[in-house]
Amino acid sequence: MFLQSLAMPIIQSPMLGAAGEALTLAVSKVGGMGSLAAASMTPAALRAAVVKLRSETDKPFAINLFVLPPVKADAAEVRDAMARLAPWRERYGLPAQIIPNQWAEPFELQFAALLEAAPPAASFTFGILTHEQVSALKSRGTFVVGTATTVAEAKAWEAVGADAVCAQGFEAGGHRGTFLKHVGESQIGTLALLSTIREAIAAPVIAAGGITDGRAIAAALAMGAAAVQIGTAYLLAEEAATSAPWRRAIAEVADDATHLTRVFSGRYARGIENDFMREMQEFSDEIPAYPIQNALTQEMRAAAAKAGDAQALSLWAGQSVKLARPGAAAEITRQLWADAQAALRETTRHYAGEGSA
Amino acid sequence: MFLQSLAMPIIQSPMLGAAGEALTLAVSKVGGMGSLAAASMTPAALRAAVVKLRSETDKPFAINLFVLPPVKADAAEVRDAMARLAPWRERYGLPAQIIPNQWAEPFELQFAALLEAAPPAASFTFGILTHEQVSALKSRGTFVVGTATTVAEAKAWEAVGADAVCAQGFEAGGHRGTFLKHVGESQIGTLALLSTIREAIAAPVIAAGGITDGRAIAAALAMGAAAVQIGTAYLLAEEAATSAPWRRAIAEVADDATHLTRVFSGRYARGIENDFMREMQEFSDEIPAYPIQNALTQEMRAAAAKAGDAQALSLWAGQSVKLARPGAAAEITRQLWADAQAALRETTRHYAGEGSA
Repeated sequence: MFLQSLAMPIIQSPMLGAAGEALTLAVSKVGGMGSLAAASMTPAALRAAVVKLRSETDKPFAINLFVLPPVKADAAEVRDAMARLAPWRERYGLPAQIIPNQWAEPFELQFAALLEAAPPAASFTFGILTHEQVSALKSRGTFVVGTATTVAEAKAWEAVGADAVCAQGFEAGGHRGTFLKHVGESQIGTLALLSTIREAIAAPVIAAGGITDGRAIAAALAMGAAAVQIGTAYLLAEEAATSAPWRRAIAEVADDATHLTRVFSGRYARGIENDFMREMQEFSDEIPAYPIQNALTQEMRAAAAKAGDAQALSLWAGQSVKLARPGAAAEITRQLWADAQAALRETTRHYAGEGSA
Repeated sequence: MFLQSLAMPIIQSPMLGAAGEALTLAVSKVGGMGSLAAASMTPAALRAAVVKLRSETDKPFAINLFVLPPVKADAAEVRDAMARLAPWRERYGLPAQIIPNQWAEPFELQFAALLEAAPPAASFTFGILTHEQVSALKSRGTFVVGTATTVAEAKAWEAVGADAVCAQGFEAGGHRGTFLKHVGESQIGTLALLSTIREAIAAPVIAAGGITDGRAIAAALAMGAAAVQIGTAYLLAEEAATSAPWRRAIAEVADDATHLTRVFSGRYARGIENDFMREMQEFSDEIPAYPIQNALTQEMRAAAAKAGDAQALSLWAGQSVKLARPGAAAEITRQLWADAQAALRETTRHYAGEGSA
């Protein structure tokens, strides 16, 4: 089975803005599986990335896309959103008027490119594929992973034929993959989500959310996960594209510091609280949906990163962010796996060793 | 150390309305630790309960109390709350007017009785004790456990000298123990809460929330928990006081069916959604705080239970409630522990056995 062919059952989470080709390659080469966050790529760039990754490693890697319907923007809503962003843009010397080229890369074109490129694995979030789309990928030899934040979503992915389901617990950093009910009704802790999805479906389950050290990997495997998907633990990796102020915010993070917000992108995501999150919170319900708000805040976020200012950046991170450590991605992966194995051996020896009741 | 003296590192959660003396005794006798939910007891009843439990077992048990300040009720707020409950009370043949004897047993008197009774262990939630109170209990030989839903709360309990901290993850059923920030800012999944509290304090950590089968126990122990605290898995136990309609709601529960609500008690708690939760939701912010709303809904909840109607009952349950199974509490406990040990052995053999990398 595909996941069992990995030397270590560790998948690096696709993290748009932090996980590029260098990180993907480093994790795949050391024996885990890297995931390239390709949601913002043009079809041509996506094809080229798969060719490049294949030329650099014969190990499995995954390409991650956001399943999005065509965008319909409401002119008045966009105007109001721009007005709310104007003072923030001014702070970084940007004009009030924003003219994005497009709201997002069209998913249908990205999907066609993905199918053609046929990477070893592909994972999806924000929505669900059709049975036909999943079958087409599988027939090209691509292992298909769907993201679920509830049992109902896991069942939906199994129904369209996904090879595995990634159970994204409430602890997870970055965007919620929720696509059936409202996010507020789709907040299930990793432990409970893993337990209940595992009971509900036959497909292998990948555990995500709050898994930032070896002990948590051991825990997820003891829960019956076929693999873990880890993001936050790679945010400080040398190969990650995490910006300097984002790295600083992680290194200095306070206790209990992450929250869900939709003010950056129009879709709920978990990150470290900062001024933009706090001050825009009152408009949370009026902000345009993803990808519109995401496109509108893009230039501001880039300018803030360039200015070294963490206060207008999306500081995506999971609830265990205090445990993130710097280092080379290969070393981080090896250490996580060694710690996971040690935790399993130690816990078994202590509680279920020879002669224990 | 106290927790290590247990034959199985399994603590039965105190669950007011479901966990009486019979359940406490059954779990303690089989080698776990039962917890008596004593928050609604008079000081005399509390003393008598400890005497009775001591006479029936020489094994450790815990007494659980809610740390509450003296109640100040606002007459207009209470009148409005009663008006909102009137149609629900009518449904069960109860008069519109409610005259509670008192809002809650005074905590200071309960604490004095607890100190005198000196049970083997005492656990606290909803608030925090003073250093003097913790010291007094410890000097009487009582093991003191404080409930924390954030790292900051865990640090606060360690600072007043608690022997152990119960990390109550977001998955947990029943009332949130939150006492520092707002509940909305204190929602941390069990996996992340355990990871981050374990890094932040030296005291042993008890894992609670979403632990409803043996695999989850194995996971929590691999995470470094000194013990697990389990509620939902005991709700269908023969010795539990869970009412018939509550049991039925658990047996027939849909996927992803629990939510946090404050409409029953004035304090956020997790339960299976029903009509009362749905229909009262719009008044959520206006409902009087615990224990006032709790006292005002008490008669209605009792009448609903008697009528076999689950729609006006608090159906407290954790996010893994689908995994709850009926049986004798001793058998449930033994099975959970056997499954936990098997999961540890199997996972270690598979991922960290002889010859694994």
